[in-house]
Amino acid sequence: MPLPFSGPARIEHDSLGEMPVPANVYWGINVQRAIQNFPVSDTPISRHPELIAGYAQVKRACVDANEELGLIDPMRAELIRQACRDIEAGELADQFPVDVRQGGAGTSTNMNMNEVIANRALELAGHQRGDYGYIHPNDHVNKSQSTNDTYPAACRLALITALKPMIEECRLLARAFHKLADKHINDVTIGRTQLQDAVPMTYGQEFHAFASYFKADKASLDKLEPELAVMNLGGTAIGTGICADIRFRKSAIEHLGEITGYPVTAAPDPIAATSDMSAFVNTSSALKNLAVHLKKAADDLRLLNSGPRCGFNDINVPPRQAGSSIMPGKVNPVIPECVDQCCFTVFGMDTTVNWACAEGQLQLNAFEPVAVHTLLEGIRLLGNAMRTFRLNCVDGITVNLEQGRQFAAESPSISASLNSEIGYERAAAIAKEALRTKRTVREVAGERTDMPDGRLDQLLDPITLSRRLGQTCREQGGARA
Amino acid sequence: MPLPFSGPARIEHDSLGEMPVPANVYWGINVQRAIQNFPVSDTPISRHPELIAGYAQVKRACVDANEELGLIDPMRAELIRQACRDIEAGELADQFPVDVRQGGAGTSTNMNMNEVIANRALELAGHQRGDYGYIHPNDHVNKSQSTNDTYPAACRLALITALKPMIEECRLLARAFHKLADKHINDVTIGRTQLQDAVPMTYGQEFHAFASYFKADKASLDKLEPELAVMNLGGTAIGTGICADIRFRKSAIEHLGEITGYPVTAAPDPIAATSDMSAFVNTSSALKNLAVHLKKAADDLRLLNSGPRCGFNDINVPPRQAGSSIMPGKVNPVIPECVDQCCFTVFGMDTTVNWACAEGQLQLNAFEPVAVHTLLEGIRLLGNAMRTFRLNCVDGITVNLEQGRQFAAESPSISASLNSEIGYERAAAIAKEALRTKRTVREVAGERTDMPDGRLDQLLDPITLSRRLGQTCREQGGARA
Amino acid sequence: MPLPFSGPARIEHDSLGEMPVPANVYWGINVQRAIQNFPVSDTPISRHPELIAGYAQVKRACVDANEELGLIDPMRAELIRQACRDIEAGELADQFPVDVRQGGAGTSTNMNMNEVIANRALELAGHQRGDYGYIHPNDHVNKSQSTNDTYPAACRLALITALKPMIEECRLLARAFHKLADKHINDVTIGRTQLQDAVPMTYGQEFHAFASYFKADKASLDKLEPELAVMNLGGTAIGTGICADIRFRKSAIEHLGEITGYPVTAAPDPIAATSDMSAFVNTSSALKNLAVHLKKAADDLRLLNSGPRCGFNDINVPPRQAGSSIMPGKVNPVIPECVDQCCFTVFGMDTTVNWACAEGQLQLNAFEPVAVHTLLEGIRLLGNAMRTFRLNCVDGITVNLEQGRQFAAESPSISASLNSEIGYERAAAIAKEALRTKRTVREVAGERTDMPDGRLDQLLDPITLSRRLGQTCREQGGARA
Amino acid sequence: MPLPFSGPARIEHDSLGEMPVPANVYWGINVQRAIQNFPVSDTPISRHPELIAGYAQVKRACVDANEELGLIDPMRAELIRQACRDIEAGELADQFPVDVRQGGAGTSTNMNMNEVIANRALELAGHQRGDYGYIHPNDHVNKSQSTNDTYPAACRLALITALKPMIEECRLLARAFHKLADKHINDVTIGRTQLQDAVPMTYGQEFHAFASYFKADKASLDKLEPELAVMNLGGTAIGTGICADIRFRKSAIEHLGEITGYPVTAAPDPIAATSDMSAFVNTSSALKNLAVHLKKAADDLRLLNSGPRCGFNDINVPPRQAGSSIMPGKVNPVIPECVDQCCFTVFGMDTTVNWACAEGQLQLNAFEPVAVHTLLEGIRLLGNAMRTFRLNCVDGITVNLEQGRQFAAESPSISASLNSEIGYERAAAIAKEALRTKRTVREVAGERTDMPDGRLDQLLDPITLSRRLGQTCREQGGARA
Repeated sequence: MPLPFSGPARIEHDSLGEMPVPANVYWGINVQRAIQNFPVSDTPISRHPELIAGYAQVKRACVDANEELGLIDPMRAELIRQACRDIEAGELADQFPVDVRQGGAGTSTNMNMNEVIANRALELAGHQRGDYGYIHPNDHVNKSQSTNDTYPAACRLALITALKPMIEECRLLARAFHKLADKHINDVTIGRTQLQDAVPMTYGQEFHAFASYFKADKASLDKLEPELAVMNLGGTAIGTGICADIRFRKSAIEHLGEITGYPVTAAPDPIAATSDMSAFVNTSSALKNLAVHLKKAADDLRLLNSGPRCGFNDINVPPRQAGSSIMPGKVNPVIPECVDQCCFTVFGMDTTVNWACAEGQLQLNAFEPVAVHTLLEGIRLLGNAMRTFRLNCVDGITVNLEQGRQFAAESPSISASLNSEIGYERAAAIAKEALRTKRTVREVAGERTDMPDGRLDQLLDPITLSRRLGQTCREQGGARA
Repeated sequence: MPLPFSGPARIEHDSLGEMPVPANVYWGINVQRAIQNFPVSDTPISRHPELIAGYAQVKRACVDANEELGLIDPMRAELIRQACRDIEAGELADQFPVDVRQGGAGTSTNMNMNEVIANRALELAGHQRGDYGYIHPNDHVNKSQSTNDTYPAACRLALITALKPMIEECRLLARAFHKLADKHINDVTIGRTQLQDAVPMTYGQEFHAFASYFKADKASLDKLEPELAVMNLGGTAIGTGICADIRFRKSAIEHLGEITGYPVTAAPDPIAATSDMSAFVNTSSALKNLAVHLKKAADDLRLLNSGPRCGFNDINVPPRQAGSSIMPGKVNPVIPECVDQCCFTVFGMDTTVNWACAEGQLQLNAFEPVAVHTLLEGIRLLGNAMRTFRLNCVDGITVNLEQGRQFAAESPSISASLNSEIGYERAAAIAKEALRTKRTVREVAGERTDMPDGRLDQLLDPITLSRRLGQTCREQGGARA
Repeated sequence: MPLPFSGPARIEHDSLGEMPVPANVYWGINVQRAIQNFPVSDTPISRHPELIAGYAQVKRACVDANEELGLIDPMRAELIRQACRDIEAGELADQFPVDVRQGGAGTSTNMNMNEVIANRALELAGHQRGDYGYIHPNDHVNKSQSTNDTYPAACRLALITALKPMIEECRLLARAFHKLADKHINDVTIGRTQLQDAVPMTYGQEFHAFASYFKADKASLDKLEPELAVMNLGGTAIGTGICADIRFRKSAIEHLGEITGYPVTAAPDPIAATSDMSAFVNTSSALKNLAVHLKKAADDLRLLNSGPRCGFNDINVPPRQAGSSIMPGKVNPVIPECVDQCCFTVFGMDTTVNWACAEGQLQLNAFEPVAVHTLLEGIRLLGNAMRTFRLNCVDGITVNLEQGRQFAAESPSISASLNSEIGYERAAAIAKEALRTKRTVREVAGERTDMPDGRLDQLLDPITLSRRLGQTCREQGGARA
Repeated sequence: MPLPFSGPARIEHDSLGEMPVPANVYWGINVQRAIQNFPVSDTPISRHPELIAGYAQVKRACVDANEELGLIDPMRAELIRQACRDIEAGELADQFPVDVRQGGAGTSTNMNMNEVIANRALELAGHQRGDYGYIHPNDHVNKSQSTNDTYPAACRLALITALKPMIEECRLLARAFHKLADKHINDVTIGRTQLQDAVPMTYGQEFHAFASYFKADKASLDKLEPELAVMNLGGTAIGTGICADIRFRKSAIEHLGEITGYPVTAAPDPIAATSDMSAFVNTSSALKNLAVHLKKAADDLRLLNSGPRCGFNDINVPPRQAGSSIMPGKVNPVIPECVDQCCFTVFGMDTTVNWACAEGQLQLNAFEPVAVHTLLEGIRLLGNAMRTFRLNCVDGITVNLEQGRQFAAESPSISASLNSEIGYERAAAIAKEALRTKRTVREVAGERTDMPDGRLDQLLDPITLSRRLGQTCREQGGARA
């Protein structure tokens, strides 16, 4: 293959030989080779600033530990530390060009970090790029470290960081549904099971259920943080701790906790931790369950909004754009449809993560890069999907009060309320008669039973029925996020 | 582990040592060990009579070839042949106890076949069970063969055989929908896109689309047979042909074609064929696409049947059972719901087949047993699902003519028909006005345009609109399966 | 369709009409119709005794609550209770013929239970079967209940019950690997990353990692119980509590807790709980992560066992059966291969559960039956897989001590240990030289550096290297399950 | 939400009201709304130039048909045509900002195209942007069209176009493996089944199997074109042809065939075609099967390359970069690892496509955008993966001749060759003895049988054994792509 760049170059070498690297970049030969090796995704790791910043934090924790243990001199330590801080601040965001689906189990990402830090530190010290005799990517920046331990650590930090705004969107979505529920706490409509008319409920109850889903999702997602914060720093190659001082592990973990503010702990079995993908599988599962709920909400809204004349027409999602290039005046529920597609993508991502996590071999899983890239994409996608769902849809939903009332009165299943008085079989006969004659159960029951009108009105009152358990949105309260 | 049986036993041996086998069974030590090794599924390979019969046919083709080439004496050949025929006829159906998720890449199934054939042949010859000096499972029954070539051959025959009745169900389902379409060729209703009212169509067109799906599925499924009929017989271990006469391959393939009546051909690259799973992946894909169509049809029917008062209520799927233990008179679309669940199972099976087929290593895929078991289950499930779908649902569907007509008249999107006369923007204003005032587009257009009534009636006539392409079910005709 | 039975019949009726039911069965017309409606899986719900017993427990808790609240007379209550106990004891196991992939959201299962209990209670009272005037399936057995609340409750109990022996198998498997690890705590071998020689470790560390996986899985699985034990009893139709006394919910939940001994609690939002599938999604996720670990262990063992001459040959999985019908003396790792296939099935099941759980609509998910059936199958399959894995494989694993020692000495990556003394680049040159000349790093380092022999021996001692973190199986201890 | 842009604006209106649009862009109000509605993926449809160009071709075919039928004047027609040509040439690539996961079933993409074409045509005619009185996005550009028919047409063209370079990469990869096979046609090595030593084969046979896989994949992929080329143009809304002249369909299809050079045909059942996703499901299936093969090849190469000292070491994949930040001299098979990750992504994409394609409702599938985006990403990814696989890995593979020869001689399974002479059981005893004593089968057979040396040499010669079927790469020939 030809060189992937033109212009001035510097020559670097590694154990495979020499190679030109663009003179002005901070990366070195390891990255230059990786650029040529993995041109598959059109997506560099800089796509994930959480990963870049997280890795720089890991490197900073390690240099802190190295300095503390006397393994690096304070001057070099400070130079490396400053380079890390610059990267954490996003200053060198364009210096991480390696493809997200890189082979090598993250080694290219680690070397990208080592080389950029080294060259930045050299720059800060007034040295030339590539002058690794003074600060070496492997011997100094990577000291006491391996890709095997630092890459998972950086990935875990990235996930924790990326999850936070998504979890906040989840909370806000729960709150938006709860607010909608409160507004319609007394507005009766029909519940449906298996798409067939069931018994009355309120719009408030219907929307509150969505609030409950997302509130539960937030709780599940919050539980991921301590699991993700289990780190294997100090394990170095395969978890043995080779090349690292015995005290390094404790020190690096402590520094990382301080730097990030996350509840970082050390993995109890470093060998197992090096190849275990549980935290990624579990993160994907939590995203999937959130997507199941999002899809449910989006689909229900699409159903309830069906019409305007030939559908359920229970509610109105806010019109967002003209719905058809040919059918004038048509408006479609485009936001829930967009949300659904994000969910389908997340379902597929769960398959990818399953593959990546189940294909590790012996002391390492070489496919962590695609697992983590996929999770970071999924987190971002769901966060965005929840945001547009809330702002462009949920916040603007209105209900068709008259339609709801009419449905609640007309459902034949309301006859269930008569079971205790006249038995299931007679109640069924009334329901069938109501259906046949296009009347309400109340009307037919008035004729076919000798129950007093007052009793029937009481038994068949939709709002009372929907409140049997005494639950109103306000009482359940809990979903107020 | 203790012996998995009690009662009289005979002692058999293999290269691992000796072991008791129940005295009265036709299987031998290889199967006895396998019973103890794989107690995971509660499902023996006899679950799949197509596989048992198919393997017996393979064995018969091989003994024919061996005899033809002078590799076995005619007397033993005939005994083996007769044993195969007995198995093909289902006589020894209870003699195949190995678990469907066996390890060993099918070796236990092959040895199950070899041992049962040997002992049946011995019985026919008046010998004792286990008297393998006369007819040996490996040296005689398995002669010129390996599991590597005979097991895939048997699996492929099993799939071809199992697909036939399922494809017939697919044809019958297409026909049932076509018949329903013909009946409603002139009955207008509303088309919906994105669950919003679109333009008029006929019930006939709606049902005919399902017929078209299943007709296309049948055509796709029919194409699997020649791909499945590519056999690797004669390839023996890993496709090299070791232990087999060079003429055996051609002879065995020809005999197998004659015995089965299937279009059996020889794999061009026997090494590749031994590990290639394409035919299984492709079979699974075809099942999946059929399931996508079945789910679509089942879901659409559930939607169209929603109600009876608070839903679309376009059609009525036949009532099949009381729908609720508590809501009297409720009837649910239980058959489409059953069909959906079969489809979800098939989607999951496709995942399993993907895993099994992608995890082969080097010269063999050890996971063919689970792939083939899963496919055979899926084929049976879809065949059953289509049968109950047709008999218990589709055949009994009725439509609500008045509802359809009303929907077709009321949809605001029918204003599309005015585009060419007054432009999209003015047509949109009419649609919005109709919606706002709860009138029809026809009514508003009468007021808001100066078009003559006759022209408007013509432009907005639902049945004409639905027939613009001149297509009626009868004309399209093709789906008559 | 013709009647699916012959012989004496009794006539029953429901809201759809009359129908003959076999005279001697305990089920009634609802089940009889269901038998004809769902002949798809060849698998009745009696496949899952945990579900049958769980449902009977739910019914018993409900009759207790009804009696406590004065809603049923003590005599009928006791008859129903006794019938429940009989079912819990497995006495009527053949009376639950409805297909596992039934439509109707579990109504057929509920009615199967209601009818069998009613007829059993009638029998105990000396009444004829079908004499529902005395004890009615809906009015008495199903009193204060709906399928919407009792079916999920029964399913959740079934999952809790089914998980227990599987979790025990998980614990035993962890223990088996831990025992193996303890045995080889001092036996050095090579660690491999990306299938390339990495740094030394002990067989003990390698096996202990598996123990750690399964110990963590057990902990995750244990956490499912409280989530599964959240019940919606008293919610009746769609969670409104229609047809139930307001005090029923609390009472039924308490009785169910007493009856089962499980930590049963009431769902906070009954409307949300009726359609929420999170517990099933999360159960499936936990099974999937367990399967990921099982596959990892099975695959690693297959790799380490590869050979005997042309592979890694680090370990020996116990021979379980002759491995080939054609290659004499070949022995294959059939148990891990069987385990892998169970895992592939579980991966596919997760897809099915995802579909079933994401396709609910409005106030109910109609596809719970296939979700729960699939989970129960997966639980059983993994339990069986772990059992045969432990007994037929893990317990009998031996290691090739000499091979491990040789690998540990020969790996060029051991040069990492020299990094801190001579730097990464010089260490790399030594590694390459060792590889080129087919010598060990120790030998080349002796020539190429001026480090004293004693220091080199110390730096490159495999057992010391593998113990840098001071971790031994015994110290880590935790995985002792 | 605030305006997503600042700077000069023009005001446009649609049926929802007025809105500012950046003055200088070619898109209009429909796109402007869509930008605000779907900010989920950070990926605009311009990511897929094949889709943009394909849609412009569709629009050009339609304007040709409209002009031919006298439905548009030649001057406007030519302006529109020229705008289409400009877009096809990539000139307005930055004017398509709508998110790839848009709701609305592609309406936003269609309107993006309509608006950009209209404004470009207006520009060419010297009109202002937004002067739709002269050329209107709906009335002129979209004339005789709907999103329902043009969007699928554009998507299908995009897939055909995108597949071509990917199929070429597939052909080149097959050729690369074939060339490698030819080179090693006489170099013997060991075949392995279930990771256990099996019988000898040549490296040529091993590599040729990969060539056969990819040759077959190319053939399968080629078959997609005619299926994808079935178009529904003229079907307009839901396939009825509303708003289109009856002759339009034939004319548009013919023009599209001429413009693209693809074998475009008309869908026989336009109603079915509007909602049918089979072509997308089938495209995804073909990609998946290709990915199964790629994964198999990548995994096998990783296994065969395992070592260098503690693995199989049969072959050497070319070193591409330093493999470890800590282990000096380590080199990893990074290219196959990258390929694997692309395959895992494609497996996940198949899940996403399954969801999108199975969730259509009634007369339309609203989720085609995510299905098509996902397929286009998958096609690109696999094309890139195959390219780096070929150039950076396959082309540089070398084999370890001595290792192969030694393995072939040492495998105990070679004893299979003795079966016909001494029977399976005696052959097994020889194999076991060879294994126990660490000798070859040839050596033990010389002692334990009375067969002459010459006969034994002949029977056990690896190269002869691997050639029994007379197959050499050259003879099989077919895979020469």
